[in-house]
Amino acid sequence: MSARQKQQKFVYDFTEGNKDLKDLLGGKGANLAEMTNLGLPVPPGFTITTEACRVYLESGAEPAALRDEVSAHLEALEKRMGKRLGQADDPLLVSVRSGAKFSMPGMMDTVLNIGLSDASVAGLAAQADNERFAWDSYRRLVQMFGKTVMDVDGDLFEEAMEAAKRAKGADSDLGLDAGDLKQLVADFQQIVLKETGREFPQEPREQMDLAVRAVFDSWNTERAKLYRRQERIPGDLGTAVTVCSMVFGNLGPDSGTGVAFTRDPASGAQGTYGDYLQNAQGEDVVAGIRNTVPLAELEGIDKTSYDQLMSIMQTLETHYRDLCDIEFTIERGHLWMLQTRVGKRTAAAAFRIATQLVDQGLIDEAEALQRVTGAQLSQLMFPRFEDTVADSGQVKRIGWGIAASPGAAVGKAVFDSYTAVKWSRSGEQVILIRRETNPDDLNGMIAAEGILTSRGGKTSHAAVVARGMGKTCVCGAEELEVDTKRRRLTAPGGVVIEEGDLISIDGSTGKIYLGEVPVVPSPVVEYFEGRMHAGADEADGLVQAVHRVMAYADRVRRLQVRANADNAEDAARARRFGAQGIGLCRTEHMFLGERREMVERLVLADTDTEREEALGALLPLQKADFIELFEAMDGLPVTVRLLDPPLHEFLPDITELSVRVALAESRKDANENDLRLLQAVHKLHEQNPMLGLRGVRLGLVIPGLFAMQVRAIAEAVAHRKAAKCDPRAEIMIPLVGTVQELEIVREEADRVIADVEAATGTRLKLAIGTMIELPRAALTAGQIAEAAEFFSFGTNDLTQTVWGFSRDDVEASFFTAYLEKGIFGVSPFETIDKDGVGSLVRSAVEAGRATRPDLKLGICGEHGGDPESVHFFHEVGLDYVSCSPFRIPVARLEAGRAAAKPH
Amino acid sequence: MSARQKQQKFVYDFTEGNKDLKDLLGGKGANLAEMTNLGLPVPPGFTITTEACRVYLESGAEPAALRDEVSAHLEALEKRMGKRLGQADDPLLVSVRSGAKFSMPGMMDTVLNIGLSDASVAGLAAQADNERFAWDSYRRLVQMFGKTVMDVDGDLFEEAMEAAKRAKGADSDLGLDAGDLKQLVADFQQIVLKETGREFPQEPREQMDLAVRAVFDSWNTERAKLYRRQERIPGDLGTAVTVCSMVFGNLGPDSGTGVAFTRDPASGAQGTYGDYLQNAQGEDVVAGIRNTVPLAELEGIDKTSYDQLMSIMQTLETHYRDLCDIEFTIERGHLWMLQTRVGKRTAAAAFRIATQLVDQGLIDEAEALQRVTGAQLSQLMFPRFEDTVADSGQVKRIGWGIAASPGAAVGKAVFDSYTAVKWSRSGEQVILIRRETNPDDLNGMIAAEGILTSRGGKTSHAAVVARGMGKTCVCGAEELEVDTKRRRLTAPGGVVIEEGDLISIDGSTGKIYLGEVPVVPSPVVEYFEGRMHAGADEADGLVQAVHRVMAYADRVRRLQVRANADNAEDAARARRFGAQGIGLCRTEHMFLGERREMVERLVLADTDTEREEALGALLPLQKADFIELFEAMDGLPVTVRLLDPPLHEFLPDITELSVRVALAESRKDANENDLRLLQAVHKLHEQNPMLGLRGVRLGLVIPGLFAMQVRAIAEAVAHRKAAKCDPRAEIMIPLVGTVQELEIVREEADRVIADVEAATGTRLKLAIGTMIELPRAALTAGQIAEAAEFFSFGTNDLTQTVWGFSRDDVEASFFTAYLEKGIFGVSPFETIDKDGVGSLVRSAVEAGRATRPDLKLGICGEHGGDPESVHFFHEVGLDYVSCSPFRIPVARLEAGRAAAKPH
Repeated sequence: MSARQKQQKFVYDFTEGNKDLKDLLGGKGANLAEMTNLGLPVPPGFTITTEACRVYLESGAEPAALRDEVSAHLEALEKRMGKRLGQADDPLLVSVRSGAKFSMPGMMDTVLNIGLSDASVAGLAAQADNERFAWDSYRRLVQMFGKTVMDVDGDLFEEAMEAAKRAKGADSDLGLDAGDLKQLVADFQQIVLKETGREFPQEPREQMDLAVRAVFDSWNTERAKLYRRQERIPGDLGTAVTVCSMVFGNLGPDSGTGVAFTRDPASGAQGTYGDYLQNAQGEDVVAGIRNTVPLAELEGIDKTSYDQLMSIMQTLETHYRDLCDIEFTIERGHLWMLQTRVGKRTAAAAFRIATQLVDQGLIDEAEALQRVTGAQLSQLMFPRFEDTVADSGQVKRIGWGIAASPGAAVGKAVFDSYTAVKWSRSGEQVILIRRETNPDDLNGMIAAEGILTSRGGKTSHAAVVARGMGKTCVCGAEELEVDTKRRRLTAPGGVVIEEGDLISIDGSTGKIYLGEVPVVPSPVVEYFEGRMHAGADEADGLVQAVHRVMAYADRVRRLQVRANADNAEDAARARRFGAQGIGLCRTEHMFLGERREMVERLVLADTDTEREEALGALLPLQKADFIELFEAMDGLPVTVRLLDPPLHEFLPDITELSVRVALAESRKDANENDLRLLQAVHKLHEQNPMLGLRGVRLGLVIPGLFAMQVRAIAEAVAHRKAAKCDPRAEIMIPLVGTVQELEIVREEADRVIADVEAATGTRLKLAIGTMIELPRAALTAGQIAEAAEFFSFGTNDLTQTVWGFSRDDVEASFFTAYLEKGIFGVSPFETIDKDGVGSLVRSAVEAGRATRPDLKLGICGEHGGDPESVHFFHEVGLDYVSCSPFRIPVARLEAGRAAAKPH
Repeated sequence: MSARQKQQKFVYDFTEGNKDLKDLLGGKGANLAEMTNLGLPVPPGFTITTEACRVYLESGAEPAALRDEVSAHLEALEKRMGKRLGQADDPLLVSVRSGAKFSMPGMMDTVLNIGLSDASVAGLAAQADNERFAWDSYRRLVQMFGKTVMDVDGDLFEEAMEAAKRAKGADSDLGLDAGDLKQLVADFQQIVLKETGREFPQEPREQMDLAVRAVFDSWNTERAKLYRRQERIPGDLGTAVTVCSMVFGNLGPDSGTGVAFTRDPASGAQGTYGDYLQNAQGEDVVAGIRNTVPLAELEGIDKTSYDQLMSIMQTLETHYRDLCDIEFTIERGHLWMLQTRVGKRTAAAAFRIATQLVDQGLIDEAEALQRVTGAQLSQLMFPRFEDTVADSGQVKRIGWGIAASPGAAVGKAVFDSYTAVKWSRSGEQVILIRRETNPDDLNGMIAAEGILTSRGGKTSHAAVVARGMGKTCVCGAEELEVDTKRRRLTAPGGVVIEEGDLISIDGSTGKIYLGEVPVVPSPVVEYFEGRMHAGADEADGLVQAVHRVMAYADRVRRLQVRANADNAEDAARARRFGAQGIGLCRTEHMFLGERREMVERLVLADTDTEREEALGALLPLQKADFIELFEAMDGLPVTVRLLDPPLHEFLPDITELSVRVALAESRKDANENDLRLLQAVHKLHEQNPMLGLRGVRLGLVIPGLFAMQVRAIAEAVAHRKAAKCDPRAEIMIPLVGTVQELEIVREEADRVIADVEAATGTRLKLAIGTMIELPRAALTAGQIAEAAEFFSFGTNDLTQTVWGFSRDDVEASFFTAYLEKGIFGVSPFETIDKDGVGSLVRSAVEAGRATRPDLKLGICGEHGGDPESVHFFHEVGLDYVSCSPFRIPVARLEAGRAAAKPH
């Protein structure tokens, strides 16, 4: 017996707990205790802790002390109730229910009526003066216990019951009498024996112990594990088990059971919502065997109980200062509270309720911020498919991929960027379908309504770029076969989508439909975009609520929020969405399309003159780009990153080109330009381009490249200043690993800036800083800060090098296995890995500030828009996060939530 | 004026310094001061500090305080000498000489006779009573000053002098009289004016100041910079400048100049070595205008001076406790010491002198270890080309690459692995020539005498593997064009080497010769290999000296030294070389050659059965490999690393295969197997394989792979134990990033080991540990140590991820530029980067030991055999270093040197 097991108290009476002990007692147990202590009518009982479950899960056996503790609590319960568990003449019956900190599907829910047996069923009948009730209760026990504890297929019981009803000609179970039910119990027991080889246990304590263990075991059902992974719930919390004395809603018409909400969980509207079912036990409501009535009708059925319930609900909402949901039972006119919890709600309801509670004075703004999440806000920002159509079978679902960038998109299938652009120009909506995308597909992605790929994960090129654009994307739909050559997509079952066929993709769920599903735009986005006034939806109130919550967040947050945006259009949107500047403008996106040829010329330049000419041609274009950008962001900082990716990204793929040339050669018509290109591609080919000639290395190896970019920035700033505007450019050097690199580039940049200042007679005040995106940069941040006025943490690349895996490759090849095996709770590309990457960020922040106290610190990786990561960046003391325009409201909200979080 | 400039003393009189101030006064200045203080006859003078030079180099101007300080020292010197600099009737003349901490080529050396001018030359003539001497001295000044300070082409002066000699019919400069020399001075001044547009400066102080500045400027000549990079001398040390009153060896036959060594710098033999030249100044010796005589003849010329010199040399050697070299001048029978320093010596002499000085009682063993270096030892371990032939022009040098793995190799040119193996089997010696190598070339590399590539740097595959094998390699010979298809090599100038032509490559220098250069084996290797007894070379004494120094090192070192070895042969050699175990056995090397096909089967396996069959076929082979290895290393630890590289390394190259398939398809004869292979290659293709599915990820994704390897190890251990032997295997998991990975693999491994223990009834005691080769592993070392019994730092991979560059790619593309720009002093793949990678190693050592105090810690990257890195690993407290077999003696020596280093 370990020390932990000795010290630990594994069982708590309802009177011993409270609502803050959810970690230990689970949500259900903690809230039953809370209600008990509030003096509400809760049937007596006790809770076995999650700690007992953890011991069981780790060691494979219940902690040794548990049995005695349970006995002691059971004895106390029996004494209080004046009857013993399973006592033949007057059995105490209990329910056994799971109750984890977070409720999750796949967990065993409830076994009712434990304590009934062949011996005690008659005692119950006598006590209740209702034989039918007793046999019905026993029938329920054998059925639930058989199914959930003994793992018998539930359909077998259903079928037997149906058969009994058919034999009797009964419409519902109410048509079966005591004799029928007695026979059914015998049948059910037979089923159990046949299926499991074991008798249904007659010993009440054995029933209880087995049910408890079944709850423990259900922690690790596949469905529960999957849910925990999806919801980022740690796998080792364990569940509590609540043992509660039974009350009966099925003792006759003066009995019943119901569920209630203190406000509408769908809309947040105030009022009383719920359902009531007369003469029934709780699971009848869920099973929908008979029709419930609206809760309001209870007033007519049992006014006393109804009034008491209304009063209790008022108490609960005031006490919990939030929407509560409730399960209750009325036993022969006596109201019993069986459960309450802070109720789930839709994203829209969350925002409405938070502001309503502020208005009611129940919570303050800081508290209101804890009542909503960035994830809820982002749900509200996507256009959606009309549920009624999507789920109706009117359209055919042909596949399911990774929900990479949310939203709902409909369009004609196209299989290449060229067609996407052409068709979109002629007014068609298109969905771009590729095996995977690369920078060449950018124009096509811009033109398309949505992107669908059969390869790559949540951080593949398609996913990242699509999220950046706020464009719907489903990626990694591996069951779909994309044949770009034949321009078609084959789905399982041989469904073939040809170019031009209409498809619909849901980036929030990953679902892919053949045909058109109607789309509803998001009012919240309409509001952020300035197309809808905050007060415009008075009836609905959602936009008003979002508006108010965003204002709370903006008032309290310390982190600034900037955008990753590469052009004036994105910048303008980002600004509308609340961006306080651009944290990352990737200049490589300015080198695509028609300008690609210029980069090719630069790469192929054999002489200084050729290279200078190529750069000279790029300069005015870059300058024009920056002028536009600074205009869109006038008065706000714009961090421009100098060229980052390896140059061969601008050249054709080596394998494709090699094949083309080889085939051409075999036909003796090789193209001179292709041959020259192939030579260059070979020369620039890298085994691991991510670890190759890119970022500052390019700037140091290709004379004049960075100087051209710096000149373009400086001239653009001078141009805007001449127009009496307020451009605030910052120059960011990517991929620095050592301060020497930065010093050399800085020297050159300073020279160029001085040149432009002299030529224009303008003081430009351009800050120069660096990305911290290599472990070495983080490790030597103290040195690097000597030459940098700001750091921007590039946590995407940092994650790649700290973990030694590349986004492009690994998600497909082993992330799934890693999630399955629990090695990751969540992809470190999605939420920052605090122990590894995060510890580097933290120490670099400290070292950088030690060298330069006024060092500006930000982050511009994908993590900048991830709720959990935003909290981390707040905590380590960054000045800003920068994320894609669409994630800006989420980042603002989460930055506010982080600042308002109670400590 | 900065604070530094104010506080600093920039000029030291010779009486103010000492030999330990080399950082500040340079070697020359420090030693002149030391000799002055020893009471030896040194002409008075002073030294301008390196700090003054650093200020000049950083700011572009001499520190403001310098001029006054120099004036003060000059005044003191003038007072002492009783004459002023350039005084017309009796000029004080001085020499201005550079003197850095390390002497280096390319630096301005000396300007003599500063202070002479048209005005003072007559005064000198009168004082010396020798008009010819005065004009000769003036001629020398104008010539040296013109060339080194004013940057005039030295040939112009030489030509003018030759013309004068021709006109006079003189054989040597001694044939020119005062009038001739006066005319020559006028001619030289004309040359200066014509070439520079400026007059030769007549103002003596201006002469001196310009000479001082010229010394400063010469710090940054291209040659000096190159040398510093090669010798790893920091670029910011700066040089000192020594200003010394002139003494003259050219005042007549009772004057002269010479150089001397206290022992033979080539062999280390004791005795007096040197040269003497009558009636000459120092540069005449260097210029070789007239023939010197052996120093011993000075005894006959000037016995008094000779005896005094012998006594001084004795004093110096005893004082410096080392070989000294000396420059001296005799002025009219008076001996002056102009320079001394601890003399350079060959590697062989270094070992001999170190042991001799121990025998003489001048130094102890610890000090002796500081007198030799690992680099010298490794020089002694390579076979060498017979110099007389290589440099004679008997063979043609056709190129020059990177000296990647030292040694001298001769053989017939072959262009593929297959031919290399075939020819070598039939008794031919071959040199394998490739553009670059990959694992497929391994058999060819083993078969070849040496490897020559036209691409890749010091850490390319060819270089790393060749060093591992101790095989000569020249790589990155970019001027050579390798055409493997046509099987030929084209060198500049159109020299074509066909398959079968004899070539010779020198891995110590990078030189490549056409034809055969004779090779001399290394006696030191013969000794390590046990083929030569330590006492066998009594006449020479080198092996004896190495033997003794290695014994000193082994006695004192704390670091153990293990080998990176993958087969019994390498292991046996490593053991002979002193390895105390194997620190890294790469199991992937066991999957090459004929077994490749089995790995292919594993990769192509579609079903569990196919995969299990493929693994089953590999098991007995792996087991046999390990049995051999454990036999070779009986009684010593053998760390076996489970499979590390991505599986597609075992498959054909995607581009080559794509081209082959496309061509075959165009001919309509595509091969079914190729098609299937191409599909697999596509599926496994990764953009950045270094960051892909490899190491522990493979083990987690491919069921049974690691289990097979663990079983093979366990069964091999059991087999050896059954034979009453002492196998000491350790299992190492590569590429772990998080403790969860290790835990899962460990669990499986423990199960397999328990299986084998049960089956064989043997307790196996297999330690399980991990590579620390990802930043995240280092950052979370405290967690990882919970599941690891040992860490082995994989500093190659760690360097790649910490810096974000891949060995395979970047050396070629930007390392050269980085070295040129001084961003690196030395490649971080060669010597560990202490600030970045090193800081991770240091903190991981601390965190690991904090979790598990008895954690065994080693390193198995290439750095394990690098001298400077070995010192670092000693310092951070590792238990062992592991390196390629050939580097083991170096590692042993450096580990000893590190332990013996005074603090």
